[in-house]
Amino acid sequence: MKAEIISVGTELLLGHTVNTDAAHVARELSALGVDLLHAHTVGDNAGRLEAALREALERSDLVITTGGLGPTDDDLTKETVARVAAAPLVEHADSLRRLKEYFGTRPMSANQRKQAFLPRGCVAFPNAVGTAPGCAVPLAKGKTVILLPGPPSELLPMLRDSVVPFLQQRTNEVIASFMVRTFGIGEGAAAERIADLTGGANPTAATYATGGEMFVRVTAKAKDAASAASLAAPLVEAVRRRLGDVVYGVNVTGLESVVVPELIRRGLSLATAESCTGGLLAKRITDQPGASAVFGVGLVTYANAAKTRLLGVPEDLLRAQGAVSPEVARSMAANVRARYNSTFGIGITGVAGPDGGTPEKPVGLVYIALSDEKETRLRVMRPQGRYLGREWTRSRAASHALDLLRRRLFGLPSEPD
Amino acid sequence: MKAEIISVGTELLLGHTVNTDAAHVARELSALGVDLLHAHTVGDNAGRLEAALREALERSDLVITTGGLGPTDDDLTKETVARVAAAPLVEHADSLRRLKEYFGTRPMSANQRKQAFLPRGCVAFPNAVGTAPGCAVPLAKGKTVILLPGPPSELLPMLRDSVVPFLQQRTNEVIASFMVRTFGIGEGAAAERIADLTGGANPTAATYATGGEMFVRVTAKAKDAASAASLAAPLVEAVRRRLGDVVYGVNVTGLESVVVPELIRRGLSLATAESCTGGLLAKRITDQPGASAVFGVGLVTYANAAKTRLLGVPEDLLRAQGAVSPEVARSMAANVRARYNSTFGIGITGVAGPDGGTPEKPVGLVYIALSDEKETRLRVMRPQGRYLGREWTRSRAASHALDLLRRRLFGLPSEPD
Repeated sequence: MKAEIISVGTELLLGHTVNTDAAHVARELSALGVDLLHAHTVGDNAGRLEAALREALERSDLVITTGGLGPTDDDLTKETVARVAAAPLVEHADSLRRLKEYFGTRPMSANQRKQAFLPRGCVAFPNAVGTAPGCAVPLAKGKTVILLPGPPSELLPMLRDSVVPFLQQRTNEVIASFMVRTFGIGEGAAAERIADLTGGANPTAATYATGGEMFVRVTAKAKDAASAASLAAPLVEAVRRRLGDVVYGVNVTGLESVVVPELIRRGLSLATAESCTGGLLAKRITDQPGASAVFGVGLVTYANAAKTRLLGVPEDLLRAQGAVSPEVARSMAANVRARYNSTFGIGITGVAGPDGGTPEKPVGLVYIALSDEKETRLRVMRPQGRYLGREWTRSRAASHALDLLRRRLFGLPSEPD
Repeated sequence: MKAEIISVGTELLLGHTVNTDAAHVARELSALGVDLLHAHTVGDNAGRLEAALREALERSDLVITTGGLGPTDDDLTKETVARVAAAPLVEHADSLRRLKEYFGTRPMSANQRKQAFLPRGCVAFPNAVGTAPGCAVPLAKGKTVILLPGPPSELLPMLRDSVVPFLQQRTNEVIASFMVRTFGIGEGAAAERIADLTGGANPTAATYATGGEMFVRVTAKAKDAASAASLAAPLVEAVRRRLGDVVYGVNVTGLESVVVPELIRRGLSLATAESCTGGLLAKRITDQPGASAVFGVGLVTYANAAKTRLLGVPEDLLRAQGAVSPEVARSMAANVRARYNSTFGIGITGVAGPDGGTPEKPVGLVYIALSDEKETRLRVMRPQGRYLGREWTRSRAASHALDLLRRRLFGLPSEPD
């Protein structure tokens, strides 16, 4: 099955909103083995939307639109699809009932009520979060247009609960996709190491770099999920072996999603003391549900006085070495561990920029220390040739801390092989 | 000038990467008054890319591609554009020099060297961060194709330093765009309040909702930036007046970008004690450069023992009221302020979910307290009708905390009017 996505919204063409909807829809289509050949974005303009729709329907079997279903006059997707499908909008009883339920005793305007009108003959998809239902509209030649709301909080549950089951009944091929995620290797080096593994047609392997991390995607197509997974498995294993211990997981969401569950599983605990990352490490740890079982205390000690008072970093040391130094990072890690009774302590101190750098301690220099009952390991993150920004530096430093802990937890050497 | 964006990359069509590049490019085009009518995404497939390019060039004066400029065999954009433009790829001396500089003493493969080849007659854009230069390729009938690299860290500086100046010389209309940002009002309510302000053609006003916040975008077109800004200004003011104190800023990046600079300006300080937000509030505060001047200490006290030890929340209180209670939030805020000598203290405690809810204290219930030398204000964030997820709950709770502080700093009532 060939598909296209049409995202509708002037805010997307003005760059006010990043199109995460298209990525969510694309991921689900890929998992269902639907070939997504094009994605388009058009503004809140009925003429251009209609042209894009007609063009997409000529090439593809399935067109999924996102956005333009709301109550305002700008919301034109439903009207446009109804015109293309020659299916007039009619009031949909169940959608009206849900809409009334949503508003309860509050008054409902005519515009709000408009949301209960759907193209005749469609399959309605209830909106679990907001007011505008989605739907699947059947067209001539077995083609289908699926309309989804724009807000991701509404689109995501509808995609999962209605669209995927709807499409599953209509496809007969499945793609299994495995993301082999790494930390500590560049895309060029990784591509070289697995060069001879990337030539196949099914399964396939390809390298990608994003946000300072590099991953290899292995995909396989087959009749069902289990066969596709079996087909991909040997290639996933080969890629893992070839890349070595920079691989931190397959189909995981980030270093924290590997580290936190392992701490939970082994009943270990962690305390953090952050300076330049300012809570980002704690935030990433507590992104994981259940983190409270292993993460009792996180300290953001920006001020030197806080480093001394909360962590017992000696004033002399701060004076002699400066707050950004290997010694202070070590002291932060060792003391946060000892003071707050944790198995591990992490200390991070550095210069996130854009200001505050000196020739000796340039912007981008960060010291990261991990302490356990026996020793304290240190990792130095040096500025790249070019400054990539405060956000990049902070995010990278937090990843280094999680990678250090991962290596300690899984008995790996402190640095990549 | 009419423009289209073509994003190239199979990873986009598989949903592995969110297309932030298109949003960045769109924003710059909008600021330059270039009308972006369509954005497309195609995979790493020369045939489909060529078809999309030819189609876009029929409709538009300018086509900007992102992605597919790297050293791997998948990177086909340059070759495809060269074919469409009938401009063979030739080695570009300055790009080769920069590439050699980048590699230094490391060996450079033939594939890497390929990046110094550009379509004959183009204007090259140096890559300040990575290896692949961008370029602008002139075509017949005064049309232009601009090629940009895919990684945002490479695209962004090239966009700012090369593409914008290149396009500025070629456009004669400018759009001024003002985002009136709010916290504490829904899109429907806001749209009603400004309904009579949204009908104009130039300037225009429209509501948008994203990530739990709602904003109004006001745009105006004129010959130059100053005239466009003057044209928009009265409408911006009218929208602000109509919406009242839920407006926290215009063209700002978030609540923290209003609150932190105000603290800095007035020499005030802040300490935070977070439970369910787990460092997210500290992270958002320290996203702001210069936050160290006002933010000395942030505590993540997940464990009750940490709340008692670091904050002096009485054990009796925790036992009697539970960690998620108005009393504990107030105690956290008042104590973090007093213990760590800050003008303000913030305490957050709640149930972020997905687990840990009870009938009395359901998932999504969060207490947020702000303490100063005189009093402690409390805000209760109750679960929405439907649970929107851990990330949403945490993010929203951190926003509530920043909004409470904003209202205190600017002398506004604790709750929206």
